[in-house]
Amino acid sequence: MKLATIKDGSRDGQLAVVSRDLKSAHMADAIAPTLQAALDDWTFIAPQLDALYGQLNAGQARRAFDFDPARCMAPLPRAHAWASGAAYLNHIELEHRSRGAALPAWLRDEPLMHGGAGADLLGALDDIVLAHEEWGIDFGAGLAVFTDDLPMGATPDEAHGRIRLLALVNDISLRNLMADELARGGGPVQSKPAAAFSPVVLTPDELGEAWRGGKVELPLRVTWNGHLAGQPNAGAGMAFNFPQLLAHLCKSRALRAGAIVGAGPVSNQDNVRGAAPGHACIADQRWRETAANGAPDTPFMRFGDTIRIEMLDERGKSLFGAIEQTLRKLGQ
Amino acid sequence: MKLATIKDGSRDGQLAVVSRDLKSAHMADAIAPTLQAALDDWTFIAPQLDALYGQLNAGQARRAFDFDPARCMAPLPRAHAWASGAAYLNHIELEHRSRGAALPAWLRDEPLMHGGAGADLLGALDDIVLAHEEWGIDFGAGLAVFTDDLPMGATPDEAHGRIRLLALVNDISLRNLMADELARGGGPVQSKPAAAFSPVVLTPDELGEAWRGGKVELPLRVTWNGHLAGQPNAGAGMAFNFPQLLAHLCKSRALRAGAIVGAGPVSNQDNVRGAAPGHACIADQRWRETAANGAPDTPFMRFGDTIRIEMLDERGKSLFGAIEQTLRKLGQ
Repeated sequence: MKLATIKDGSRDGQLAVVSRDLKSAHMADAIAPTLQAALDDWTFIAPQLDALYGQLNAGQARRAFDFDPARCMAPLPRAHAWASGAAYLNHIELEHRSRGAALPAWLRDEPLMHGGAGADLLGALDDIVLAHEEWGIDFGAGLAVFTDDLPMGATPDEAHGRIRLLALVNDISLRNLMADELARGGGPVQSKPAAAFSPVVLTPDELGEAWRGGKVELPLRVTWNGHLAGQPNAGAGMAFNFPQLLAHLCKSRALRAGAIVGAGPVSNQDNVRGAAPGHACIADQRWRETAANGAPDTPFMRFGDTIRIEMLDERGKSLFGAIEQTLRKLGQ
Repeated sequence: MKLATIKDGSRDGQLAVVSRDLKSAHMADAIAPTLQAALDDWTFIAPQLDALYGQLNAGQARRAFDFDPARCMAPLPRAHAWASGAAYLNHIELEHRSRGAALPAWLRDEPLMHGGAGADLLGALDDIVLAHEEWGIDFGAGLAVFTDDLPMGATPDEAHGRIRLLALVNDISLRNLMADELARGGGPVQSKPAAAFSPVVLTPDELGEAWRGGKVELPLRVTWNGHLAGQPNAGAGMAFNFPQLLAHLCKSRALRAGAIVGAGPVSNQDNVRGAAPGHACIADQRWRETAANGAPDTPFMRFGDTIRIEMLDERGKSLFGAIEQTLRKLGQ
């Protein structure tokens, strides 16, 4: 099943069901007004949404309309939990290598996570609006899961069964603010502005065999200013799968329905699976350049830059629709 | 005006108006179903709530009932933004002094903040439930503000005018998990379990002259297992006032109505205003002991411990009602 949140002028938008081919949609307000309401009561609501999804795919939904990603808000425009982990160790290894440091052993045992800004998440085609290029504005293409309730102390196995939905995410970082924030020990706050989400969220079954072991085994296509920046595989190099990230968060807290947990920018080692993976965030590329040449060549994003993030299935069909954003200067 | 969220079996509870003396209450569902709904549309809703508040205080509300703090959820049981700063420099200075380190200069210029777990906030009389005493379970008595919408780049002056409500908070920390988490650079996640809030939130005008300069100039009474642990003044030693904390957060993101921002545990230097302030978190006391004797004497909380946090006005009346919690072991 595929779902989206449609802009209607309200803070939370309106829930819609989207056809598997992303061509048509149908408002779901007769079933649940918002995606949060659906997740709040998932076992009761999901079968009703799924029935509508079946009708829509069969061309039998009564008030279907053309699906337009530009009308999408973030699936949960204000999430009460948006946490992110750095699940791709290669990303952290590249950073360490760029300054000649070894990867600390604990990073292989426990994921590095932080609580993000969930109050004002961006729709797939919303502009990225920030004040200064000098902050080192970096896209970060990855995946995120939306959970049901999860009790404190949940195991990875328990967490696996509570993953209700997946989305693509552009988890933007301000790299030139981040190093200071992390060194100071408060965690990233100013360096993590609002993230953007794919037009559509989908249930794990939509991924078929590509959803296995709590990972999505498909390439993520990242296009920066019209050029392919990378197509790393989202399963490869994921040192902590989504159930493990969830269990890490649940050690001392419960998660409630509608929690969103991201895995950080996808990052593959060079030559994994026979192809140069490229990069899903600029930092990876700059760290590679620094390790090779002593300094980075690739600049961070400039105002006017565009970023496109998409995942195709084995037959080349877009699964989530594309995140397509333009970076714009605040107040202009 | 004083407001509370009453347990009704739902995830968000029901909004009620509470009398100034905390003796009676009146459901506000005819005006706004939840506190989040009231904050979403504050300029329209607040005058209606205030009219009901006037009737309730005058003994003229038609369906008033006795106010019972045990029926209170957190004012916003699931907040889409719950961030906390370490606004009391003495707290950080004590930590540094305990290990013979000097306070870094930047800590006087910018607050240390992190994003917390807002999905599952605790009511004033809810148990604190955690798995292991060995985590170093510490209470943290302080204040928090609830904001209206705040645009990216808001100044402290702009932020000041968007503070709608204040509450007391028990911002619990797991001290033995925290040092590792902060050293690793991800920010505190596992070391910050669910925080608890006072039964009542109030508008700043309820504080009269005690609300000045974006600070609350009143002592916070902290009682641990029936003994007074401290009564530090919440205005003294606040190096960053609430508007400054909000502006720090807004540098690269917007805040939306219902964001909660805490100032960390209140911490006064010894002999400020002529009295030993005691401590609003156990860590402060342990750091004092370590600086004096080389090691801490005071243990962290044990299962069965109680913690009480309250703020009285100049006439000795409770402003927010009391947070009164018992620490309980998970699964028992």
